[in-house]
Amino acid sequence: MAVYTQISDTLLKEYLSAYDVGEATSFKGIAEGIENSNYLLQTTTEKFILTIYEKRADPENLPYYLTLMKSLAEQGIKSPLPIEDRKGLALKTLKGKPCCMISFLNGVSSDFPNDRQSYNCGKVMAEMHKALSDFPETVENTLSVSGWLELFKGRAEQADALHPGAGAFIANQLAYLQDQWPSTLPRGTIHADLFPDNVLFSGDEVSGVIDFYFACTDIWAYDLAISLTAWCFDSENCFLPENATAMIAGYQSVRPLETEEKDNLVLLCQGASMRFYLTRLFDWYVDTTDALVKKKNPQVYLERLQHFTREGLSYGK
Amino acid sequence: MAVYTQISDTLLKEYLSAYDVGEATSFKGIAEGIENSNYLLQTTTEKFILTIYEKRADPENLPYYLTLMKSLAEQGIKSPLPIEDRKGLALKTLKGKPCCMISFLNGVSSDFPNDRQSYNCGKVMAEMHKALSDFPETVENTLSVSGWLELFKGRAEQADALHPGAGAFIANQLAYLQDQWPSTLPRGTIHADLFPDNVLFSGDEVSGVIDFYFACTDIWAYDLAISLTAWCFDSENCFLPENATAMIAGYQSVRPLETEEKDNLVLLCQGASMRFYLTRLFDWYVDTTDALVKKKNPQVYLERLQHFTREGLSYGK
Repeated sequence: MAVYTQISDTLLKEYLSAYDVGEATSFKGIAEGIENSNYLLQTTTEKFILTIYEKRADPENLPYYLTLMKSLAEQGIKSPLPIEDRKGLALKTLKGKPCCMISFLNGVSSDFPNDRQSYNCGKVMAEMHKALSDFPETVENTLSVSGWLELFKGRAEQADALHPGAGAFIANQLAYLQDQWPSTLPRGTIHADLFPDNVLFSGDEVSGVIDFYFACTDIWAYDLAISLTAWCFDSENCFLPENATAMIAGYQSVRPLETEEKDNLVLLCQGASMRFYLTRLFDWYVDTTDALVKKKNPQVYLERLQHFTREGLSYGK
Repeated sequence: MAVYTQISDTLLKEYLSAYDVGEATSFKGIAEGIENSNYLLQTTTEKFILTIYEKRADPENLPYYLTLMKSLAEQGIKSPLPIEDRKGLALKTLKGKPCCMISFLNGVSSDFPNDRQSYNCGKVMAEMHKALSDFPETVENTLSVSGWLELFKGRAEQADALHPGAGAFIANQLAYLQDQWPSTLPRGTIHADLFPDNVLFSGDEVSGVIDFYFACTDIWAYDLAISLTAWCFDSENCFLPENATAMIAGYQSVRPLETEEKDNLVLLCQGASMRFYLTRLFDWYVDTTDALVKKKNPQVYLERLQHFTREGLSYGK
């Protein structure tokens, strides 16, 4: 949440001269996104976000993310449209780093989403799954079960240091998830990071879905499980069954879940909790003196994993 | 350059309900200002900056800064207007911290200002000095000579560690400045931090002057010296006499300098270099693990001090 690459007004002017977007009237670095630099750019014609890709996004996958965003925007999903220059290029470079200008979306993300917002999040997710159901490109989800096993290697002690007993619990749960993880559920292109800060609202209506840099090909219902895990706990980390019920209903209003998907939803929520627990655990112990990023305590997702293990979804599978 | 205090959409809504400014349609943390949190807020009616004062600004002086900004804006200087709520209050609190909403100014700051921009910076500075010439409130400049002596206490070794020999050079210069610092030059309210990032341009015209949180009562020509020191060196730290000549001319187009002010301008530039050298030296050795602020190397201002000591202003006093 910072700006790593400084863009001078001179460089910006030169950059914009390749586009038909008018001239900059305002240009502010914004505190958004993890490990990318983002600028809010107002030109004489429109508002844009200029993203300079730093470390986290795999440069090889950038064309995939941009094509995917373009496909969604063109199908009427409220998502950012990558802007092409006069030559038709959307993926460009600034100071030797890949970058892209995308359309700006109005709206404010909800820190404590209500059930109506959760419903609309589920709905727009299913709309995205449908819109991308014949999207031809695929990218493996490197943060699924085999990625988790890799991430946890040699980290049981770190887990215990933060929360005594967590090391063994996680190891057990990992073995269980590896054994049980479903292989026959419907798959497609998923957002894979649809947290509350990635959905913009106008009132309770979705005005934008952003940040597609974890998108990949995986189980559709796992995408839903990620959002259930992210949206359905309050500030004390207590489960909010009304949000979960609403989100599932919103999803099903567009794409009804199959029986096998419903049967696996709790397991998928356990997997989603595991995924965010492990990446946060990893980040917690990375030296980030220079990174200007606030670390997030993995504990929150350990507790959510415990919740799903103990109580499932009170939605009543 | 980060956002320290997170404001939820719920809290924002509650906060805005005290104002007649419409509802939020977009709310982004921006990477601007040092050690304050700044948000760019778009409402159904207008754009604003919401600033939450963290550490650096002295809370006791906040009413002074806001009254000063109001006075400037009301006199037609392109500077942010503090927005009052329905009760007429501009200085408010959020999460127990002082905060203020100000009008948003279009424009882009110039990383490498040209002579025309330097002229216009000088001009707007003199306009501000005039506009505030009967401003009744005064605040001492704590970062003038006695503040420098305080800052440098016990730091000769740190100075030497960064640049061998700097400790003795600085000590000598400090003694010289203390001895020579003028006491009879015209004084008034000064910006005291009019760096290129605090002036917004539309083309070469000034569209906004921002960040008044170092404003104080001091020598008018010292304000000019600060901007000469900040604006008139290129990316290799070579002096740009054409910028300096233009800035002084711009200033004098509104308020001609008196002979004594001209005679002291080089000395004041040495003082300005000293001030920024010392605060950067201080910051360089402060533990900022949590601060999310990139440190700036003091070396740049040591070299500028050396330049002014050796060569003065080629503007030809």
